[in-house]
Amino acid sequence: MSKPTKRNAFYAQSGGVTAVINASACGVIETARANKDRIGKVFAGRNGIIGALTEDLIDTSKESARDIAALRTTPSGAFGSCRYKLKSLEENRAEYERLIEVFAAHNIGYFFYNGGGDSADTCLKVSQLSKRLGYELQAIHVPKTVDNDLPITDNCPGFGSVAKYIATSTLEASFDVASMAKTSTKVFILEVMGRHAGWIAAAGGLASTEANPLPIVILFPEVKFDRAAFVANVKRKVDEFGYCSVVVSEGVCNPDGSFLADQGLRDSFGHAQLGGVAPVVAGIVKEDLGLKYHWAVADYLQRAARHIASKSDVEHAYAVGKAAVEMALAGKNSVMPAIERISDKPYRWRIAEAPLARVANREKMMPKSFITRDGFGITPKCRRYLEPLIAGEDFPPFAGGLPKYVRLKNVAAPKRLEKGFEL
Amino acid sequence: MSKPTKRNAFYAQSGGVTAVINASACGVIETARANKDRIGKVFAGRNGIIGALTEDLIDTSKESARDIAALRTTPSGAFGSCRYKLKSLEENRAEYERLIEVFAAHNIGYFFYNGGGDSADTCLKVSQLSKRLGYELQAIHVPKTVDNDLPITDNCPGFGSVAKYIATSTLEASFDVASMAKTSTKVFILEVMGRHAGWIAAAGGLASTEANPLPIVILFPEVKFDRAAFVANVKRKVDEFGYCSVVVSEGVCNPDGSFLADQGLRDSFGHAQLGGVAPVVAGIVKEDLGLKYHWAVADYLQRAARHIASKSDVEHAYAVGKAAVEMALAGKNSVMPAIERISDKPYRWRIAEAPLARVANREKMMPKSFITRDGFGITPKCRRYLEPLIAGEDFPPFAGGLPKYVRLKNVAAPKRLEKGFEL
Repeated sequence: MSKPTKRNAFYAQSGGVTAVINASACGVIETARANKDRIGKVFAGRNGIIGALTEDLIDTSKESARDIAALRTTPSGAFGSCRYKLKSLEENRAEYERLIEVFAAHNIGYFFYNGGGDSADTCLKVSQLSKRLGYELQAIHVPKTVDNDLPITDNCPGFGSVAKYIATSTLEASFDVASMAKTSTKVFILEVMGRHAGWIAAAGGLASTEANPLPIVILFPEVKFDRAAFVANVKRKVDEFGYCSVVVSEGVCNPDGSFLADQGLRDSFGHAQLGGVAPVVAGIVKEDLGLKYHWAVADYLQRAARHIASKSDVEHAYAVGKAAVEMALAGKNSVMPAIERISDKPYRWRIAEAPLARVANREKMMPKSFITRDGFGITPKCRRYLEPLIAGEDFPPFAGGLPKYVRLKNVAAPKRLEKGFEL
Repeated sequence: MSKPTKRNAFYAQSGGVTAVINASACGVIETARANKDRIGKVFAGRNGIIGALTEDLIDTSKESARDIAALRTTPSGAFGSCRYKLKSLEENRAEYERLIEVFAAHNIGYFFYNGGGDSADTCLKVSQLSKRLGYELQAIHVPKTVDNDLPITDNCPGFGSVAKYIATSTLEASFDVASMAKTSTKVFILEVMGRHAGWIAAAGGLASTEANPLPIVILFPEVKFDRAAFVANVKRKVDEFGYCSVVVSEGVCNPDGSFLADQGLRDSFGHAQLGGVAPVVAGIVKEDLGLKYHWAVADYLQRAARHIASKSDVEHAYAVGKAAVEMALAGKNSVMPAIERISDKPYRWRIAEAPLARVANREKMMPKSFITRDGFGITPKCRRYLEPLIAGEDFPPFAGGLPKYVRLKNVAAPKRLEKGFEL
C-alpha cells in the first residue's frame, strides 16, 4: 500500500478555555479547508488530548462552513478541553507512543496543539518522539492562555479579552461605588484570575485614564502583600475621591509566601473553608479602616465573556490558528506562531515563528518596570503595552437578547484501533 | 412679589444605582429642556435627597446637550445617589418641612424622585405635606430598581439589564464548564442579587433554551433551601449533562428562616466572617457530592454592566423619565409612570399612570406560577414574561477599548438659605 500524499490533521484544545480559543480553532479549520488539495480532514480531540489517547476523534468535516465560521464568535472549547498533563517521556513513554499509534491509524501528519506552557512542552515532546520513531509528523503549537505568561509572543490570545472584561468591569463598578459612597459602600474589591502572574489584575488599572482618573489599588501576585501599606493607600484614595476600587489577583501572597486567601477559616463544624481572596481583603478593609465594602469574584465569567471580547484579541487568535496551518504547509515542525509587536501607536503586529524549545516551560511574569514603585499600580509603560490588547469591539451575533453561540455536532470518526487506552 | 409662572424642577436618584437610571435622568432633563416655556431649570440633588436637605443642588442647565444625551449610555448615578430613608412624618416632620423650605427657596414646583419602593413612599409623603402646608408642588415618582419588586408596573427599569447580564453570564460560564467537565470543574455556582425576590436569579434560567438546553439549577429566596432535594437535582444534571450551573440568590434561606450565607464562619481569631452564599453552596456540593466546583459573585458588576444593557430596558428607563415630566406638565401629582405590557410576542408596551398610594410600601414577589414545581427552575410563563425584558442590545460608545461614559460637571447652584441642615 503506497503512502497517501494528502495527510490529515489533528487539533486539540488544552487547559482552561477562553473567550477566543474557538477563534483559533476556526483559523485552523478554515485554513485547512482552503488547502484541501494538501490537507485531508481535520480531526479534533474530544476533550483535548484525551480524545487522541482514547481514539475519540471528532470529524470536523461533518460541520457546515457556517458553523465553523461561528466558532469565531463562540467562547469556551467547542470540542472540549482538559487538564491532563502528559508525564515526561521517561515516566510514561506509553502515552506518547499511543498518540503516535492513533495518529498513524488516522493518517495524521499535522498536530496542532492549542494551549499554554504545558501543552507547548507536550507538543515538543510529541514532535521529538515521532522523529525518533520514524513517524513523519509536524507538530505546531497554537498559543492560548488568559494568564498571558508565554515567552517570546508579545501576548497570548485569550488574555486581551479578559483584560477588556476586567478593565470594563472595574470602570463600571467604580462609577457605581462613586455614586453611592456618600452614605454607602466606600471600597469595592474585585477578585481576578492570576495565580503567578499579575497581567489580568494589571488590566484593572486601564479603567483609570488621564481624562477620567479613578482611585484603583491593584494587588499583584508579584508583590508580597504589605497590609499596612495597602491600608494606607486605600485610606488615601478614599480621603481624596470618597471611595476606592481594589483589583486583587487570586494569587496574592503574604510575606511568608502563603496565599492571602488561606486564612484558616473554619465552619461551625471546624472544617476548613477556602474562600476567595476578595472577602479576605474586604475583612482587612473593615477591620483596619472600618469602611463599608462590597466584593465580587469574577471567576469563569471573566474568561468566558465573549460578549465583550477584544477585537485585537480575536484577530490574534484567528491569526495564530491560520498561521499554524500555513507553517505546517511550509514544512515547519516544532514551532509556534508568535505575535510580534511592531509598534504601540498605531498598534501594528505580525506573526513570527518561535521554536518550541524556546517556548516550553518558561513563564513570563510582569516586568518590574510595569508596576509602580509603591507596588499598587501600573506604569505608563505597562499601559502602552496593554492598551492595544483591549482595543476594538467584536460583538457576537445576538438572538432573543442573548449572544448566539454555536454548538457543533461533534460527530465521532470511526475507530480504527482494536485496543483501547486506560487514562 | 408676584409668583413666577415658570417653575423649576428638582430631580434626585435614590437607593442602589443601575445601568440605566441615568437614562431616566436623561429622559427627565431632555423633556424639561424641550418644554423651556413651561419649566425653568432642572436642579438635581447631589447624592440624592441629601442634596435637597442640605441645599446642595446641582444646576443641570450648566451641562451641554451632548453630555445630557450621553447619560443615556452611562451607568451609575450621575448626580450621586444615597441610602437615606426619610422617617415617617410623625417621627421627623422637620425633614419634610426642610425639603419644602429648600424647594420654595429655589422656586421648585416639580419633584421627580427616581427610585424604588422607599422613595415612592417618600415622594407620596412630600406631596401630602406640601398640600397641607399650602405649597404648590407636583411630586412624580420615576420607577427604578434592579429588584423588579414594584407593584403595578410590568417591570422596573434597571431590572432588564441585570437580567440580560445574568442570563448572558450564565450562558457563557455554562459553555466554559461544559468544555472542561471531563477532567475539571463539574459544578459552577453564580451568586446574584436579590434579598427578598428571586427575579434576578430567575433570569439565569433564560440561558437555557429549547434549541440549546443547559443544566441550570436556580435557588430562589422565595423557596426554602432543601439541601437533599438540591443535591439530588444537581447530581441528576451532572449525570445527564456532565456538568451543572447553579444560580443562587443572595437571599436564599434555610428552613428555619436564617440566611444560608450565614454559616457561623470564624477566622483564626474567632471573628465572625460573613462570606457570600456562593462559597456556602460550593461547600455543600463538595461535601455531599465530592464534585469539583468553581464559584463567582457578580455583586455590583451585574447592576453596573451598561456595556451589555438591554435595549428594551434602556427604552423603558428613558420613557418613564420623559413621561414623568409630561405628567407634571399635564398637572398630575402623586403619580408614577408605570410600564404596561400590551403583548408578549411581539412585545408591545405603553406608559400608564399609577397613583403613588397604590405603589408605596408594596413588594412584588415572583408569582408561584413562575417557579417550577420542584422549586429549582422557571416555568414557560416566567420565560414569556422575562424574554422581552432582555431583548435587544444598546451598546454604549467605546473609545480606546473601553466604554465611553460621561462625567458631568455637576456645578452647584448658589445657596439661598442661611440655615444649614444636620443629617
